[in-house]
Amino acid sequence: MTMHSATLAINEAIQKRRAAGEEVLHLGFGEAGLPVPDFIAEALRSAVGRNGYGAVVGSEEAREAAAGWFCRRGLATEAGQIIFAPGSKALLFAAIAALPGDLILARPSWVSYAAQAALLGKPVVEVPIPARSGGIPDPALLESAILEARARGGNPGILLLTVPDNPTGTVASEGDVRELCRIAEKYGLAVISDEIYAQTVHSGASAPSASAHLESRTIVTTGLSKSLALGGWRIGFARVPSNEWGDAVLQDMIGIASEVWSSLAAPMQAVAAHVLSEPDAVREHIQRSTRLHATVANAVCDEFLAVGAQCRRPEAGFYIYPDFEPVRATLERKGVRTSEELAAVLLDRYAVGVLPGAAFGDDASALRARVATSLLYGTSEQERWASLRAEDPLQLPWIAGSLEHLRAALQDLVS
Amino acid sequence: MTMHSATLAINEAIQKRRAAGEEVLHLGFGEAGLPVPDFIAEALRSAVGRNGYGAVVGSEEAREAAAGWFCRRGLATEAGQIIFAPGSKALLFAAIAALPGDLILARPSWVSYAAQAALLGKPVVEVPIPARSGGIPDPALLESAILEARARGGNPGILLLTVPDNPTGTVASEGDVRELCRIAEKYGLAVISDEIYAQTVHSGASAPSASAHLESRTIVTTGLSKSLALGGWRIGFARVPSNEWGDAVLQDMIGIASEVWSSLAAPMQAVAAHVLSEPDAVREHIQRSTRLHATVANAVCDEFLAVGAQCRRPEAGFYIYPDFEPVRATLERKGVRTSEELAAVLLDRYAVGVLPGAAFGDDASALRARVATSLLYGTSEQERWASLRAEDPLQLPWIAGSLEHLRAALQDLVS
Repeated sequence: MTMHSATLAINEAIQKRRAAGEEVLHLGFGEAGLPVPDFIAEALRSAVGRNGYGAVVGSEEAREAAAGWFCRRGLATEAGQIIFAPGSKALLFAAIAALPGDLILARPSWVSYAAQAALLGKPVVEVPIPARSGGIPDPALLESAILEARARGGNPGILLLTVPDNPTGTVASEGDVRELCRIAEKYGLAVISDEIYAQTVHSGASAPSASAHLESRTIVTTGLSKSLALGGWRIGFARVPSNEWGDAVLQDMIGIASEVWSSLAAPMQAVAAHVLSEPDAVREHIQRSTRLHATVANAVCDEFLAVGAQCRRPEAGFYIYPDFEPVRATLERKGVRTSEELAAVLLDRYAVGVLPGAAFGDDASALRARVATSLLYGTSEQERWASLRAEDPLQLPWIAGSLEHLRAALQDLVS
Repeated sequence: MTMHSATLAINEAIQKRRAAGEEVLHLGFGEAGLPVPDFIAEALRSAVGRNGYGAVVGSEEAREAAAGWFCRRGLATEAGQIIFAPGSKALLFAAIAALPGDLILARPSWVSYAAQAALLGKPVVEVPIPARSGGIPDPALLESAILEARARGGNPGILLLTVPDNPTGTVASEGDVRELCRIAEKYGLAVISDEIYAQTVHSGASAPSASAHLESRTIVTTGLSKSLALGGWRIGFARVPSNEWGDAVLQDMIGIASEVWSSLAAPMQAVAAHVLSEPDAVREHIQRSTRLHATVANAVCDEFLAVGAQCRRPEAGFYIYPDFEPVRATLERKGVRTSEELAAVLLDRYAVGVLPGAAFGDDASALRARVATSLLYGTSEQERWASLRAEDPLQLPWIAGSLEHLRAALQDLVS
């Protein structure tokens, strides 16, 4: 049985508590809680006449726009290398299904990779992340993990990298990505590079990509859910290399897409074509959103550090991944011995919703949780616009109040 | 390797020939070639602000509307029994994945069922359709097919019915559906009832549903792609029974949905909520569309009958499934010995695009093809609206011209 995705499940659970009148601090879900700017709404409005099925891969217009988008990021790309789908999640599923061999994942990593592999009956090889950043197997451990898997009769074939990362909110270094690609090449692995957070790097720098080091064997997946807060519009796309291998993988992904979801909704393809041409309004909106993500994620990180937890500084997106190991003794006295118990006590006693590290495949006994910070921007469109426009969003009453709620909870938890 | 869905593939192939200036008669694709009426366009326009992920199953509003829609069709249903997805195809995939046992299919049947089973590593048991209608295994053959499959070590667990049917355009009888349900109950099968064409019955009658005979074990899938020509909007939904079994199947379908596509795009859920409340404009539009489908499908059927092919009269949707067996000797003299060769000669020599029966799992040597008639309504919005409004659409020059093209092709083929 495939379990309901942990991230989507906690979102629904918290929505229900809120609907019942409970005041819950929603740090459980990776939704970029921002409204739809009018220039994007207009792109959808003007596409309502499009009701034909169209090509599985997406319209020429949308594929051209995506190719241009990659070209402007230094990766020469033609429209024929692009496939759209209802969300990059669907494309990850298709890529994992299309590529031969077992799946190598960072531990912890986003909840759906392992679940997709399980659905496809594909074994998973888990490799711990390095101390410096998440989203990647520790390069120092990858080679031995491959050899051990082979010795056990396994056949590691796919290396999945999440750069920038969910759950840790960090960005792997260029050197680490290069080294992982070197090992991938040595062992004939394919690389899936999940770059859904690449437009949300807080510094504005570009994130490292496997496609810069092992372009010939890398499939990039991305979409508009995070950078433009369009999760509910389900716009994802992927790029395959322009070679025989890439052509074959794309054909197989098209086959899977055509038998499971057909295509991205036609009006959403029109939105993608517009947005990926990157008019100034889009660039500015993404910059402003990213600044807000950075400010709030860092403020939340500060709260965890203040009570003695460890936490990598967030570098992209809207997540942090605190670790209560330094205060384990205190928590254990309160009966908190696992990440599940940590998440449970935070939700039940303090009305703070986070996801346990175990949901990301992390050691169950590690006292880690993923904390998403993007639903603090407000519950109404008005509040969210105000957050986006504020000079100092931390002073807005709903954000300040949430931080206060979190602070009180954490102080009591570790007292 | 999962092959590109045959129906979507021929659509793309013909679009390319047309783009290259070739005049191709497109009878290959089951797209209800009609424009978006303004009252539906407006429902999407007014939902552009919805960008949150929301629940995997769909919004309460959309689920309530779908439940009401089933209730008005005599099937008591609550919102909790409904799941939405980007297309009913995705829900068929989830249901086939969620249900245990091998898949029993009619031969011929829609192209994607067997492909989904293959993708899931699930064996298929094929049972020929009766002479009177397609979409169902011949009730006289089902029981022995189950026993034979078991004797071979198989475990038939799911009976898939397509009522009304694609590819034959027929509607199984109430008696046949009842008898199939009786056998399904006897052998503990689950039933998936694909009712995507149920709103397009030419007579206006309701189509038989397994949910009237074995409600406790039936999953119904449907959507807005056919009745409202919204294929490119990807709006599908399913109903599970309100019992322990249905709850468990739904939970498993939610799990799969959450890990592969997350949810139907939020603005499309708003469209579904509006349309499924069935304002008069929706009912009238569906009635008018169905009248057009009936007129044109029957006219195309006449052309095949006129040259000596056999063909069941179309009763729903916009398909016919002619059989050239009575003129096999003539066709064989021209080198046409299989359905693939039949489709190839029609496309290459006569610029008539149809799908070979083999694409639907039919005997390769049978000279049968699926002929979709809904792309004859015109190539522009203007032509399509005119078709919809015409007293006698067969007199419109683009439809009359297409019938003329087809007539000349068929007369030459059998001469």
